[in-house]
Amino acid sequence: MKTLSRSVNMSDHIELAKFLFVRLHQLGVGSIHGVPGDFNLTILDYVEPAGLTWVGSANELNAAYAADGYARIKGISALITTFGVGELSAINGIAGAYAERSPVVHIVGTPSTAMQDAGTCLHHSLGDGDLRVYSRLYKSVTVAQTNLRDPKSAPQQVDAILRQCILESRPVYIELPTDMVSALVPCSVLESPIDLTVTSSQELHDADIDAIIERIHTSKQPFIIVDGFASRYGIVSEVNELVRITGIPTATTPFGKGIVNEAYPNFYGLYEGVIGTNIPITWAEKCDLILRIAPLNSNVNTLSFSTIPEAQRTITFNKDSINICDTTTFRDVDIKAVFQAILQRMPQDKLPHNEVYPQQLHHPLQELTALPEPTADGVVDQGTFYRRISSFFRPHDIILAETGTASIGSREFILPEKTQLLNSSIWLSIGFMLPAAQGVALAQRELGASGKCLPGRVILFEGDGSFQMTSQAISDIVRNRLNVTVFLLNNDGYTIERLIHGMSAHYNDIQPWRYLQSASYFGAPEDDESYPVTTRRVGNWGQLMNLMRDEDFSDGKGFKMAEILMAKDDAVESLKTLVNKAKSSAQ
Amino acid sequence: MKTLSRSVNMSDHIELAKFLFVRLHQLGVGSIHGVPGDFNLTILDYVEPAGLTWVGSANELNAAYAADGYARIKGISALITTFGVGELSAINGIAGAYAERSPVVHIVGTPSTAMQDAGTCLHHSLGDGDLRVYSRLYKSVTVAQTNLRDPKSAPQQVDAILRQCILESRPVYIELPTDMVSALVPCSVLESPIDLTVTSSQELHDADIDAIIERIHTSKQPFIIVDGFASRYGIVSEVNELVRITGIPTATTPFGKGIVNEAYPNFYGLYEGVIGTNIPITWAEKCDLILRIAPLNSNVNTLSFSTIPEAQRTITFNKDSINICDTTTFRDVDIKAVFQAILQRMPQDKLPHNEVYPQQLHHPLQELTALPEPTADGVVDQGTFYRRISSFFRPHDIILAETGTASIGSREFILPEKTQLLNSSIWLSIGFMLPAAQGVALAQRELGASGKCLPGRVILFEGDGSFQMTSQAISDIVRNRLNVTVFLLNNDGYTIERLIHGMSAHYNDIQPWRYLQSASYFGAPEDDESYPVTTRRVGNWGQLMNLMRDEDFSDGKGFKMAEILMAKDDAVESLKTLVNKAKSSAQ
Repeated sequence: MKTLSRSVNMSDHIELAKFLFVRLHQLGVGSIHGVPGDFNLTILDYVEPAGLTWVGSANELNAAYAADGYARIKGISALITTFGVGELSAINGIAGAYAERSPVVHIVGTPSTAMQDAGTCLHHSLGDGDLRVYSRLYKSVTVAQTNLRDPKSAPQQVDAILRQCILESRPVYIELPTDMVSALVPCSVLESPIDLTVTSSQELHDADIDAIIERIHTSKQPFIIVDGFASRYGIVSEVNELVRITGIPTATTPFGKGIVNEAYPNFYGLYEGVIGTNIPITWAEKCDLILRIAPLNSNVNTLSFSTIPEAQRTITFNKDSINICDTTTFRDVDIKAVFQAILQRMPQDKLPHNEVYPQQLHHPLQELTALPEPTADGVVDQGTFYRRISSFFRPHDIILAETGTASIGSREFILPEKTQLLNSSIWLSIGFMLPAAQGVALAQRELGASGKCLPGRVILFEGDGSFQMTSQAISDIVRNRLNVTVFLLNNDGYTIERLIHGMSAHYNDIQPWRYLQSASYFGAPEDDESYPVTTRRVGNWGQLMNLMRDEDFSDGKGFKMAEILMAKDDAVESLKTLVNKAKSSAQ
Repeated sequence: MKTLSRSVNMSDHIELAKFLFVRLHQLGVGSIHGVPGDFNLTILDYVEPAGLTWVGSANELNAAYAADGYARIKGISALITTFGVGELSAINGIAGAYAERSPVVHIVGTPSTAMQDAGTCLHHSLGDGDLRVYSRLYKSVTVAQTNLRDPKSAPQQVDAILRQCILESRPVYIELPTDMVSALVPCSVLESPIDLTVTSSQELHDADIDAIIERIHTSKQPFIIVDGFASRYGIVSEVNELVRITGIPTATTPFGKGIVNEAYPNFYGLYEGVIGTNIPITWAEKCDLILRIAPLNSNVNTLSFSTIPEAQRTITFNKDSINICDTTTFRDVDIKAVFQAILQRMPQDKLPHNEVYPQQLHHPLQELTALPEPTADGVVDQGTFYRRISSFFRPHDIILAETGTASIGSREFILPEKTQLLNSSIWLSIGFMLPAAQGVALAQRELGASGKCLPGRVILFEGDGSFQMTSQAISDIVRNRLNVTVFLLNNDGYTIERLIHGMSAHYNDIQPWRYLQSASYFGAPEDDESYPVTTRRVGNWGQLMNLMRDEDFSDGKGFKMAEILMAKDDAVESLKTLVNKAKSSAQ
């Protein structure tokens, strides 16, 4: 006779924190960002034994921003904060990851289940006995939340939420109570990786794919607009292949810049509607078919919604839906599978052949060579800075442009192939990019070490106002011996705000820091050959040109910082135009 | 015949932002903290014309923390952030103000009412058209919220929410849409100040007051425990008077330290239950009446709830209720009026006279004088540091002790009369106190300028880990030429976490900064006699003793910073005891 209750075989069980970290490691997480606190200390004991690196950020907002940057490169990241004070400091960063679809796993060390149930008046609580209040706040800025209270179900909870994080490409929130950290949970599922198959209820038939191809082929004047979510949906290579083999005139949005190989002859630059200089608006408005790929419809990315074409002449490819010219909508599809099917079924001998391609008014590369040599003692102006500095870039560089004059300016970068550009096109939280650069540099180093990418540089462009928000990220960069090059655009305050309102208002001024002391202040080693620190002040074009040729600066090794002095009312022309249009429409 | 519609007399109207700032100015706000953003720029145009100073913080979390510190001194403060990214960066600071009852008015510049209604996909939104999502998050951490959409009702909305902020002594949240900033609103109410009368439904009769007095007089062994909310309820002077005239043995909680004049002969120090050294626990447990004033019942403040006496022998005075020995409860009372009535009706010739006052085992002042002279070349130890440094303090100083070893250590300070101590006893967010010191110094300067207080110093004690969280607050201190003295306790990492768990764990290490470069890095003027910068490194007791005698350091003028090197496993004895007790009870 069998016994009704069988004893649990504990060799089939491991500690919950270990389970969680094994899963994260399996998914490609190599390092974890965060800050210790008394509700998460025992969790941290499991980080390094799981083969993961603990970053140890100076504060939680920087940790969250860095985790976002890391996730944009590696496709997943993890952040650990403590209950209340830690997680609330990070919430702006997680909200940004939500808005811009960056898959960050936010793990919070919370009070024990007994204290949660008793409503104990604990430190880091609001004092009202409600210890779950922060988890409710996180419902607005994460795509899934889970509280790991039950050892039996915890493995399934972990697997389900990690799957959702990756498939939705959005942050998730995990509460790990102190008494559950080392609770033993069944671990047999660890033998199989988490199932990341996209379950789409609607599979497009060959006929549907052929109909899309036919629609492309019959177009007299097609146009491809690639947007930034293409990288989140994992379709960058498919999109590039489509652009390459069709030869259709292609542009990106501001958010999408860097996703399409800018060396393709049919790459036309940024589509910015009436304020754009690359694509004749008269031509764009006559296109009879626009392939709009992975769009982000924010005001900033669509130039106040002016670059969203009419649905009747547009095929829009979203994460899990396709809208064909406002006549057919396929919902709950696997967008990557659709692109692969299109590429596979597109007849190579019947590529589209269009007569009315637009003249490339200002092909980016032509623009660069057409620039006259700057006067050596002239002040560096934003009007040509972004194009001139482009000759500093090399394949495999990852370039970040902070919100503000730098981000708008980055639209004028001319990017070599195999570079990536990170900017923000809806969240626009100044201060994001410096910690993000730390996360990106760490992700890049890990990918390089595993042979998954060639070593490039991480190059950040950031204004002085943004820099001040999160400056201690340099401490994290230096501490983790990461290779980061910072171009600090010192224009003496919040220049983008000046242009919008209050050009000479006191509130747009900031405290002048001694920025080039950053590495020293934040504890960089002195005279350590394995981690060189190189700083330069650039007051004119001649110094900038010298800097770009200076191998000590351009090798990308260690921490580099160039402070570029710029006029406080200067910006690229398109930004001035944008602001003036906004002002006149507000009148 | 009268016309049915009369034209509005616009001279009776002013712009809404002006109305709001006039009200804040009337209530005692002299300066506003915050960070500009494109949704609040036009609001900022009204700050300085209203006679208010714009602080211009380096980031929003620091601005919120500083506003909290300012409010703890002045009884109200204001913070302006921008929609989404700004307000979410500040939310941890506002939650702390809520938990510890600091009245901060948080004004958020939000998108126009038209955009709110249309659900526009704006920058700083999550992209889903919901532009009110952040206001819903703020419901959890503020006592009232209002959206100023209607010019007719806006003045009443402003007055009501400011009244609530002050009466509840908790933060409130105001949304000011861009199109409402300069909307004209009726302003006749500005002629009268906001009514701050406490409306208590239950007024205590003389007989009720006399019954309380009688209960005190008939007590054989009374004991007064004063807690930190006494300052929030505006009853500090009344409480001190009660302590003085009754002569009843009095202690404070950790949160309440500094509220009672420590020079009173019947002041016994901190009541810390079994781990305390000032009050014999055997005596405290036999007290037949405990007056518990304005308590905060958090685990940290009550030594894991062990110092909360039985209700049967306690009169508890809360913000708007009084519980008398678990037999009678008065609700919805005006606590300040109650204290004033008790003081007025307490017969001077019939003061309590008790036989069994406890022997003062360790009167703080005796302890100080009993300390042996330290060895000049000995490392500064936490065990005696807090008592020895107390001789540095002077009347009118405001002293801040950051969460961690400094806060627990500050329980051993011996405070001269007319000093104030700020610590955190439920929120405990490391990084709070440095920006808070900026806010405190600004409030103190304003009070000094208006003759409302004598100029003292602002002296902060903070660990290195906390300092790194919010270091750019020094930029705000320097920019606003504020007088702040910082004792940076450099113990090489998160020492309080080490004591709790992971004494030598890597995750409790931090990057070593060159802390004494702070003022220089953050742009302090060089050789400006009106704003001197003084820094010292203290490696042993001899250097500390010299520092305390050094007039250049002790004058409190400009920015002072002493970096005190301490052992990384060192803490006051009570902290070690606390942690060991917590560990053994968890086993």
